[in-house]
Amino acid sequence: MDQKRCAVASKESLKRIFTVPEAPDSTLSKIELEISSNLAGFLNENIAAIEKPLHEIEKDFQAAVIPENPTFVSAYAQDIMEQLVAHSVHTAAPSFIGHMTSALPHFLLPLSKLMVGLNQNLVKIETSKAFTPLERQVLGMMHHLAYSQDESFYSKWMHSAKTSLGAFCSGGTVANITALWIARNRLLKPDGSFKGIAAQGLVAGMLHYGYKGLAVLVSERGHYSLGKSIDLLGIGRENLIGVKTCENNKVDVNAMREKALELESQGIKVMAIVGVAGTTETGNIDPLDDMADLAQQINCHFHVDAAWGGATLLSQTHRPLLKGIERADSITIDAHKQMYVPMGAGLVLFKDPTATDAIEHHAEYILRKGSKDLGSHTLEGSRPGMAMLVHACLRVIGRKGYEMLIDRSIKKAHYFADLIKADEDFELISEPELCLLTYRYVPKQIKQAIAQADAATRLEIFASLNRFTASMQKRQRESGRSFVSRTRLTPSKYDNQPTVVFRVVLANPLTSGVILKEILAEQKELAKTDPVFKKYLSKYMQ
Amino acid sequence: MDQKRCAVASKESLKRIFTVPEAPDSTLSKIELEISSNLAGFLNENIAAIEKPLHEIEKDFQAAVIPENPTFVSAYAQDIMEQLVAHSVHTAAPSFIGHMTSALPHFLLPLSKLMVGLNQNLVKIETSKAFTPLERQVLGMMHHLAYSQDESFYSKWMHSAKTSLGAFCSGGTVANITALWIARNRLLKPDGSFKGIAAQGLVAGMLHYGYKGLAVLVSERGHYSLGKSIDLLGIGRENLIGVKTCENNKVDVNAMREKALELESQGIKVMAIVGVAGTTETGNIDPLDDMADLAQQINCHFHVDAAWGGATLLSQTHRPLLKGIERADSITIDAHKQMYVPMGAGLVLFKDPTATDAIEHHAEYILRKGSKDLGSHTLEGSRPGMAMLVHACLRVIGRKGYEMLIDRSIKKAHYFADLIKADEDFELISEPELCLLTYRYVPKQIKQAIAQADAATRLEIFASLNRFTASMQKRQRESGRSFVSRTRLTPSKYDNQPTVVFRVVLANPLTSGVILKEILAEQKELAKTDPVFKKYLSKYMQ
Repeated sequence: MDQKRCAVASKESLKRIFTVPEAPDSTLSKIELEISSNLAGFLNENIAAIEKPLHEIEKDFQAAVIPENPTFVSAYAQDIMEQLVAHSVHTAAPSFIGHMTSALPHFLLPLSKLMVGLNQNLVKIETSKAFTPLERQVLGMMHHLAYSQDESFYSKWMHSAKTSLGAFCSGGTVANITALWIARNRLLKPDGSFKGIAAQGLVAGMLHYGYKGLAVLVSERGHYSLGKSIDLLGIGRENLIGVKTCENNKVDVNAMREKALELESQGIKVMAIVGVAGTTETGNIDPLDDMADLAQQINCHFHVDAAWGGATLLSQTHRPLLKGIERADSITIDAHKQMYVPMGAGLVLFKDPTATDAIEHHAEYILRKGSKDLGSHTLEGSRPGMAMLVHACLRVIGRKGYEMLIDRSIKKAHYFADLIKADEDFELISEPELCLLTYRYVPKQIKQAIAQADAATRLEIFASLNRFTASMQKRQRESGRSFVSRTRLTPSKYDNQPTVVFRVVLANPLTSGVILKEILAEQKELAKTDPVFKKYLSKYMQ
Repeated sequence: MDQKRCAVASKESLKRIFTVPEAPDSTLSKIELEISSNLAGFLNENIAAIEKPLHEIEKDFQAAVIPENPTFVSAYAQDIMEQLVAHSVHTAAPSFIGHMTSALPHFLLPLSKLMVGLNQNLVKIETSKAFTPLERQVLGMMHHLAYSQDESFYSKWMHSAKTSLGAFCSGGTVANITALWIARNRLLKPDGSFKGIAAQGLVAGMLHYGYKGLAVLVSERGHYSLGKSIDLLGIGRENLIGVKTCENNKVDVNAMREKALELESQGIKVMAIVGVAGTTETGNIDPLDDMADLAQQINCHFHVDAAWGGATLLSQTHRPLLKGIERADSITIDAHKQMYVPMGAGLVLFKDPTATDAIEHHAEYILRKGSKDLGSHTLEGSRPGMAMLVHACLRVIGRKGYEMLIDRSIKKAHYFADLIKADEDFELISEPELCLLTYRYVPKQIKQAIAQADAATRLEIFASLNRFTASMQKRQRESGRSFVSRTRLTPSKYDNQPTVVFRVVLANPLTSGVILKEILAEQKELAKTDPVFKKYLSKYMQ
């Protein structure tokens, strides 16, 4: 046993860890000081630039038995710096433009510590007190952002014990599940002798209402969490109908209407249609106003998944892109995406404050009827006070501050799109509507070869380009200087064939034009030495 | 506009909040320094002792419109201290023994800050890297704690891309939902032309397998999250069957067997039986081994909700209480309860590493087949790196350290039970099996009055005692010195009538014997001036 590392469990040592703070000169205190005084520097310095293969990283996480003896905090801190921090992802780096995770405002770090130190549990007033009104206020503010009801509405409902204007949750997935759960339970609500799906279940509900099936309709670009939701809710993934999109990745509402009417004529009730406000892969926004019309026509729940794009509502400039969202029955927004809050802050809003009645629940010791406990209307039970961090951002950044951030991100995306279009060896695949775009590297000779190729060769080149794009993306990530992500689209330019593309999200306020130019330059260099290119594509380079 | 508070949104000010840390002499830095150097002192000093009524607190959280202009961080920090922190709940106070939330080990504060600063997203390797193997290791360690498989098992499965030994999630509710989701999907699995419930839904599944209904059986003391789960899964709350408990609050397994066989004879398939390891209200553990036998007999999923009691496995002394848990198909454990991790760290474990196949999902841009992305097997999508804090506790506290903590908590509960029993004006309602017990204040004269009363008076006294207990609990909470929670049980001593009781959880390592004596003394004093007592019970005091 290494004496420097292994402590002995004793009454005194245990008491110490609960009462005595880290000494200011301890390893952990020094790490913390570095984070506080220079987070960017800390991350730049301690996250290894060159990627270590995953199977190498895994070697430090092999032991499956909980160690018998305690480890000294200092020894643990050192381990964690070498084994974990060094091989984390630098999500805040301005050259890492492939994620929806960005840099964080500095003031959130001390506030996060305050949140952890207070260790409130938002399930009930008894363990959250002022955090409950605070969370209700944040929900009210976000509700107002989307639905703009008048003052009397919020003074009536915001702090009402009976209802909730929304629900905080860990992320967009739980938000989407919650919205569809409510849609399902409101559709199959109590009626006469039927006590409602919440009490009697889906089968009884279908029988009572005489539906042969239920369906949810969404664009083919809808988020995979909707598939999870519909599985969980017992409706089955086959009944999540993906509707084709127009060239701009927005759902074809006419096609959706046709499908909906066809289903209804078969006795299959459309439980909800889901609009996407900021598709994960291309950042586009569905025609929400038209979808609201359709929802009204077929009398179904209208949910908008604005997990990523919802923050756009904070910009007067770009808010019109989401026109119609105010007609949605429910809206998902992730504060940990374009609202710059740390991971774990999703929320769902309900137009009708009584919507959550459909999922209300009580217990003996908490969530009693008439209490203001938030837990009686949420999917999750015990939850941390993440709402405080959203509250802080709304106050410290302000609506106008967010507007500037969002406007600049979108401007940056257009700038990057222009850079791509100006370079004959690149190809823009999807135009930015918000701050997200896709592109790929296709040298002009390859473009010419495609134009001249016969059908079979054309497909062969397409396949090779896919392999090449994937290879480039991986090599760029491994080099550690910058990061773009990748996805697969079916653009008409490539005969609607599966097409691998680079995907970038330009939400980090620290990403500059210079960095964007460097990323393209790096890709040009990487292309020259790419083994896949050499093997499959160089033959077309005359 | 208050110039000291309202900043102007500008390019420079926005850049600053992302790049320039708080000055060491700023309000927020001073707050943080206080937290770091003396968390207990900070909480004692800044959380108001006397409770402010909720409607008063709400006054500071009325505005429903997001402020247009930014607020200076210092002004915000000051507001938050006065409006939020002052009216938070002192969950770490050693005299607040009514919650499952306790004091935190100090080293978790800087580590939480590190976690937030790194801002990893555990949904996929691409945004979590080393955090993914770390989380898999923690799941492996917890799996080993419960199931004790051999080394080859863990070296085969722990880091396998195909499977997962469990899932981290925000809390026990999501853990329970995940477990029952898997149970349901495994029961109604693909079979011949039926593509499985995940694809085709519950109605098709029931038809294919010829079940008239599904049911889940659990003790009447089961957690309310099970009701939520079964609603969400489309099975309906009526089909969550609460089985009576024996005098010690453990489920009557014979009654459960009878009920299960009765249901099966009616064509209703028992999808799962749920054992409780640490009931929320009384802290008792169901006879898990007998339940495992029953699950085997009727061939159903056996889930154990050990959200609160699971940590007991870390103690060799008390581990035998959970005998049979190693035969469970799935287990819920909340690390933010008796493992002393901050709020937001639940997990579910699966005996069979391939269990998560039943809920597996993929997407184009992440969670690709063959990837080690944890998100392909979790209910949640984007998630923070809470696993790091569990990892830190397992290493720094060690199994033996946890054993001491758990053993001492249980010892303390017995000590408190003895204090209660030794005082003729108190009454122990449920004996501690773990560190949780219930009791109430019943002066000996009232006890005598009950013994001598006719049936009607007896019920009248019972009702009055309930009102009185609730009143005392509220007054003690409002006085701010200490806190016990309350719940409602149906003990035979009170003719199985609903009986309001004090409930205490003695997990805080800083709660001393002296504090426990003070709490009882305080209650004796409070009783003397209780208006409900005066009005309804003083007449029996001769």
